[in-house]
Amino acid sequence: MERLFSDISMSLDGFIAGPFAGPEHPLGIGGDRLHQWVYQLESWRRQHGLSGGVPGPESDAMRESFERTGAYLMGHGMYRVSSQSWGTHPPFSKPVFVLSHTPREPDVRTGGTTFMFVTDGLRGALARAKDAAGLRDVCLAGGADIIQQAIGAGVLDELRLHIVPVLLGSGTRLFDRIGAEYIEWETSRVNGASGTVHLTLRPTAPARSA
Amino acid sequence: MERLFSDISMSLDGFIAGPFAGPEHPLGIGGDRLHQWVYQLESWRRQHGLSGGVPGPESDAMRESFERTGAYLMGHGMYRVSSQSWGTHPPFSKPVFVLSHTPREPDVRTGGTTFMFVTDGLRGALARAKDAAGLRDVCLAGGADIIQQAIGAGVLDELRLHIVPVLLGSGTRLFDRIGAEYIEWETSRVNGASGTVHLTLRPTAPARSA
Repeated sequence: MERLFSDISMSLDGFIAGPFAGPEHPLGIGGDRLHQWVYQLESWRRQHGLSGGVPGPESDAMRESFERTGAYLMGHGMYRVSSQSWGTHPPFSKPVFVLSHTPREPDVRTGGTTFMFVTDGLRGALARAKDAAGLRDVCLAGGADIIQQAIGAGVLDELRLHIVPVLLGSGTRLFDRIGAEYIEWETSRVNGASGTVHLTLRPTAPARSA
Repeated sequence: MERLFSDISMSLDGFIAGPFAGPEHPLGIGGDRLHQWVYQLESWRRQHGLSGGVPGPESDAMRESFERTGAYLMGHGMYRVSSQSWGTHPPFSKPVFVLSHTPREPDVRTGGTTFMFVTDGLRGALARAKDAAGLRDVCLAGGADIIQQAIGAGVLDELRLHIVPVLLGSGTRLFDRIGAEYIEWETSRVNGASGTVHLTLRPTAPARSA
């Protein structure tokens, strides 16, 4: 059964991007700090066509995340701010389904990445991504809005959350606008290297009134 | 040298209390969930005059936190909402300095807890608490406002943060209103038992413009 998972880095104060995110600064001002731990990993560098890097458990976990992914699901905001920075050879190498309001022709790039724009809502886009993923999983790439929608709708099966020990003070919060409900998660793995705290979380109780 | 530390439980989405905190619900609606991991510890139960409970590393860490504390520092909001629930024998058994706007006679209770109201600001209250603590440390009990003030002023030496894998959705955020600055922390200990993630954090770079 294909699962929907997300793999995302968050600051201690809950931000996944700094302020003023836009095409010039896709991660916002200061947001790059959240990804420093990953840029140095061997598996991340290989995925991006680079050699070298640090091997070990963090690199292995990142490789596992790449390998289990058969397709990506993405919000239109993330596509809009990051599209230019990915260049002609984006690091996905898989079909990417972008949840959109307006129909648009696919954006085909080299290396196996094709962005397809889906206008029939989160569940429609998820169904198409699961079809495309075959026996693999669907990775929910972000941004925050679509992750919040997926949590609220109860369709996010797993959240791989990397908590980076920095306070950004402002920017885009991962957990916001989910409403006055609470959701219980199971913490199924914790390993701390490089100062970053890696959690694999699975919702155990669906959203309910607090 | 006496240090100022704080020891606090936070939800995944950054709340240390649920919504509608007040004298009837000092931790807000649903906020009790954040402390379930601690209520069962042997050391916590002993501190509260109860027997039994679960021994182990989490209990030991909590005992260490009690034992290193020579005095407490507290915001007036926390005193106001929680004062009644602590009853005649509060669990502090130490002097508690409450940062206030208006002078007031000390509130003396049994078991060694005396609440003293200090009106000369955070630094004044901290100086008095450090004097009272002798060679021990000062524990910043909360709430969120005074912790944010202490982080912003660069006087919080250590934050023992317990991240509980639950989304509360609303309530009081621990990290809020600290401004568009970022602060780097060193993660000095990570141990995960009972599903809660325990971090000991020390600021390594003071607040600076992002």
